[in-house]
Amino acid sequence: MHQKNPWTIKDSKAIYQNAWIDVTEYDVLNPAGKPGIYGKVHFKNIAVGVVPITPDMQTYLVGQYRFTIDAYSWEIPEGGCPESTDPLQTAIRELKEETGLVAAKYKELMRLHLSNSVSDELAIIYLATELKQEDAAPEETEALQIKKVSLSDAFGLVADGTITDAMSVAALTKIELLQVQGLLI
Amino acid sequence: MHQKNPWTIKDSKAIYQNAWIDVTEYDVLNPAGKPGIYGKVHFKNIAVGVVPITPDMQTYLVGQYRFTIDAYSWEIPEGGCPESTDPLQTAIRELKEETGLVAAKYKELMRLHLSNSVSDELAIIYLATELKQEDAAPEETEALQIKKVSLSDAFGLVADGTITDAMSVAALTKIELLQVQGLLI
Repeated sequence: MHQKNPWTIKDSKAIYQNAWIDVTEYDVLNPAGKPGIYGKVHFKNIAVGVVPITPDMQTYLVGQYRFTIDAYSWEIPEGGCPESTDPLQTAIRELKEETGLVAAKYKELMRLHLSNSVSDELAIIYLATELKQEDAAPEETEALQIKKVSLSDAFGLVADGTITDAMSVAALTKIELLQVQGLLI
Repeated sequence: MHQKNPWTIKDSKAIYQNAWIDVTEYDVLNPAGKPGIYGKVHFKNIAVGVVPITPDMQTYLVGQYRFTIDAYSWEIPEGGCPESTDPLQTAIRELKEETGLVAAKYKELMRLHLSNSVSDELAIIYLATELKQEDAAPEETEALQIKKVSLSDAFGLVADGTITDAMSVAALTKIELLQVQGLLI
């Protein structure tokens, strides 16, 4: 097992940064010892997702137009968490803002590295249950749609390829697996 | 349903490019009409993944040290496909190079947008069955380890958090779901 880092960094150059990412180009020797460059995108936030599940097996999906892919996307509630703060607090805040839901119970469902050929983006996804409905307060910049759907309809939107967001697909597929195995909630 | 793009692009600036990505900063009006910037990472390749399954329910995992996350990562066989070429041909080539396997049957399992808050990276993942073993020829730059494991062991590595690569987690979870439902192969 080669657990040791086989890459050698010879130099690095800061290329770009904004509030969400920075981009650095590294001069490297690759694992074969050959010189090359590696452009790495560092994420300043952890991507937090949360899947709320009601006692009657309903969940909530968030719809928004994704600038990057130039397409509308239905997803589980998601938000960014600065690395120094608690991801669970971000899950609680995002769920409340986007859906008005407050959950008595949170459980971590999974951690993902979303795009590890180029970035260090980490996602943490929670299950939220024992829900109470309060008022939503979505950020005005977000132009979100919120839709309450049955879990089985959400699974169908994954199966038929309507939902393509990786965090949403991984989380909903895992939840369907747990349900089929009798292990959900 | 707001399916129309609510973002307005006022200007754009090319920031960086290499063989794999380019980074552009856009001056935008967000969906609320407020000015801001959006840094977008465009991927020049589609991420292709392929899960080979043998008749006795074994699969192959690929281990490599991921530069971006500074950690060793076990994943399904994956490779980059230039946007102008056929993703299935990339799957066939990567599977042969990394494991020496040639499959008589390929089936698309899923498509994912891996990191849609910042990038347009698309992943396409295939199931490969009816396998024949030939010689592997991994690229020397890659320093890969190849491991043949039972599907149930692979599912276990997802469940216990050892495997965190989003494509691998989504694909293996979907395959476990199909197996539990009696729908696999």
